[in-house]
Amino acid sequence: MFKQFAFLVLFTFSVPAAGFARQDFVTSFRLDNGMEVVVLEDHRAPIVTHMVWYKVGAADEVAGKSGIAHFLEHLMFKGTDKMAAGEFSKIVAANGGSENAFTSLDYTGYFQRVAADRLELMMEMEADRMRNLRLTEEEVLPERDVVLEERNSRTENDPGALFSEQRSALQYFNHPYGVPIIGWKHEVSALTLEDAVAFYKTYYAPNNAILVVAGDVEPWDVLALAEQYYGVLAPSDNLPPRIRPQEPPHLAPVRAEFRDARVGTPYLIRTYLAPNRKSGDQKQAAALTILAELLGGSGITSVLGKELQLEQKVALNAASFYGGVSVDPQTFGVYVVPAPGTTLAQAEAAMDASIAKFLDDGPDAEHLARIKTQIRASEIFARDDVDGYARRYGAGLTAGLTIQDIQDWPDVLQSVTAEDVVAAAKDVFVLNNSVTGWLMPLKEEASK
Amino acid sequence: MFKQFAFLVLFTFSVPAAGFARQDFVTSFRLDNGMEVVVLEDHRAPIVTHMVWYKVGAADEVAGKSGIAHFLEHLMFKGTDKMAAGEFSKIVAANGGSENAFTSLDYTGYFQRVAADRLELMMEMEADRMRNLRLTEEEVLPERDVVLEERNSRTENDPGALFSEQRSALQYFNHPYGVPIIGWKHEVSALTLEDAVAFYKTYYAPNNAILVVAGDVEPWDVLALAEQYYGVLAPSDNLPPRIRPQEPPHLAPVRAEFRDARVGTPYLIRTYLAPNRKSGDQKQAAALTILAELLGGSGITSVLGKELQLEQKVALNAASFYGGVSVDPQTFGVYVVPAPGTTLAQAEAAMDASIAKFLDDGPDAEHLARIKTQIRASEIFARDDVDGYARRYGAGLTAGLTIQDIQDWPDVLQSVTAEDVVAAAKDVFVLNNSVTGWLMPLKEEASK
Repeated sequence: MFKQFAFLVLFTFSVPAAGFARQDFVTSFRLDNGMEVVVLEDHRAPIVTHMVWYKVGAADEVAGKSGIAHFLEHLMFKGTDKMAAGEFSKIVAANGGSENAFTSLDYTGYFQRVAADRLELMMEMEADRMRNLRLTEEEVLPERDVVLEERNSRTENDPGALFSEQRSALQYFNHPYGVPIIGWKHEVSALTLEDAVAFYKTYYAPNNAILVVAGDVEPWDVLALAEQYYGVLAPSDNLPPRIRPQEPPHLAPVRAEFRDARVGTPYLIRTYLAPNRKSGDQKQAAALTILAELLGGSGITSVLGKELQLEQKVALNAASFYGGVSVDPQTFGVYVVPAPGTTLAQAEAAMDASIAKFLDDGPDAEHLARIKTQIRASEIFARDDVDGYARRYGAGLTAGLTIQDIQDWPDVLQSVTAEDVVAAAKDVFVLNNSVTGWLMPLKEEASK
Repeated sequence: MFKQFAFLVLFTFSVPAAGFARQDFVTSFRLDNGMEVVVLEDHRAPIVTHMVWYKVGAADEVAGKSGIAHFLEHLMFKGTDKMAAGEFSKIVAANGGSENAFTSLDYTGYFQRVAADRLELMMEMEADRMRNLRLTEEEVLPERDVVLEERNSRTENDPGALFSEQRSALQYFNHPYGVPIIGWKHEVSALTLEDAVAFYKTYYAPNNAILVVAGDVEPWDVLALAEQYYGVLAPSDNLPPRIRPQEPPHLAPVRAEFRDARVGTPYLIRTYLAPNRKSGDQKQAAALTILAELLGGSGITSVLGKELQLEQKVALNAASFYGGVSVDPQTFGVYVVPAPGTTLAQAEAAMDASIAKFLDDGPDAEHLARIKTQIRASEIFARDDVDGYARRYGAGLTAGLTIQDIQDWPDVLQSVTAEDVVAAAKDVFVLNNSVTGWLMPLKEEASK
């Protein structure tokens, strides 16, 4: 059992060999066993968010074992030598905390939000399950059924989710981003205890983890605790380099028509392969981020919204989307829901015409200025959301960005010009790199 | 150096523990180290074909290392402790022989055709390079350039080949059959000596190999030589099970339009995922084999040929194709070259109408009977081609079929009924499992 109450702050540590860096209100350290520690101070309330981010996600799975990263996320709530299955969550709740865990393509993260004086307890428990998880067949197989049921409710029962899986599979010929995070059903069904243990032993280790602590804490106190609990853990000795298969050239526009009786509102989505934010080189990703806002970012004030919804009235909704935080290139997407009486073909033609016009004319100067002002304002408000801010660091660092990159990002966004946006758009809007999908009820028109 | 002349036949061996089987004119053995030996007797001429088939092909490569199986095929002509680089081929030629080697999705094969009294020499050399290949950086890197140039001339310079690669990548979401045998260019460029050596040590071993000797030989003589040369080789101790990632459900018809300035004649190809021949269960594959003949097998006498070329005159050519011999399911394909003045869309509509009519009406009884008679005749003539017959065994056995399956195949084909053909066609012609590709010059019509 763990101590469930206040901890003594240890002031008697020495500065670790790897040194530390303090920028703005962010302080970072690296423990001797390779674990990174990032502290984000926010003293407005006596609350702390404790997060451990593993640099492993669904895109690190070997072929044929899809879903193992997410499955292991579930299994992390089973027991250790010190803790029974389910006890972790009970203790968090008993201490008035909330918790969360999630698996992405590039990372797996475990979060607890507790009163600041419960930080040590969270670290003790999280460090314990980082290397000492004990899994048995009796726990693993029923949990696999839980995951299959999760897939059933989230994916199999949602035509939009199935459609998205099919489009991703078509978008990536070679890169594992084409495989769903939750895993293909037939592969999840075959995952074993041995698969989970092997994946855990390889990837769950301090040299593959980033600790992010955000809230009412002092960096040196956090470091002391991190040394005490995480610093004693053995690193993984078989951590593979994070090199994924990359895409070959895409030489033909791809189209898929997904029909499902459950579809109420047809829509179309086109995604193009697009570069991600790279450490020290975030300019193009910043231009794409602004492009997504300009084209389809905020309802009817965006280019697609204004032209397709407001003026031509061919769309009920139109949007564009771009992430940018990932280890490898992902996609830029555009999305249109045709208005009643407009076919998907007509809506797609209108979308293409809008995009072509945008590429010719470039962004409206006032519109671009407004977007940049909105971004500047949202950056200021972002700090009010401590958890969100901490997630920004965890996601960025696990994707290979540095603290500097993350802190530079708002300025990089502000430096984007109209020419940058058009150049980035022309670079990315290459039809050969695209997948255009139509989601339709069973009797909807065909594209040809 | 090797002895280059006649060998002594050793009659002093004992029957191996695993026993042997003799069926028809095919005799098979298994050596103690796991190597299979198959002897096909043909005493019409004093010639022998010596083949070693490895149960490894491009579909056994790990993600990111595409092309390594084919690259290693090239490197197998480098040296061993006993033989200098290039010497293998020189000796074959000096002995009046011819040779060949090739890499497929499921196997890699090495063949020599020589006078029957040179068999021992071939075995000695082939056994030597099975386990004793010596590779150096100086040999490997220039050979990689040779392979890249091969890719350049065969693939990059051929729009049809590039089109085929793109279609395969779209056809398989998960299975490695979507990766080209020669490898993606960017991955071949990065293959190393270490990659080649690791692949070689794992897969090139008697327990992963099948020896096929066809021609003017006696089975017991072949066995004696096989024991002497191959029987002494150590098996691989890290041979992985041959389990590849399988396809998830395909839920949407996929289309790709490939445009290339070098295309002279546009055409369309549609492939559907289709079952392969399975050991003891070849009925559906036999029906698909007959279906391919009926639909588009022999020019204008086939359904597509007669209707699209002769009657409607919308096609210059129409064909269908199906293989069936593979470890995992592959595809059934249909292909139409539109006549001048006919668009790809019109040709595709005509093809779809022909197929729909065929599914309704079933095959013409006389046509089916004629196809089966042709197959029966071709089976008789097939034995005249000793090499082709031997390849049939090598390819079948490396795909997981048994000698019995291979010998049963002609009868299974003859047992196919009209109902079997229609049932197999209905099972396979599911549009959601298909990829339809249009190959076009740059200015050809679009599909929408």
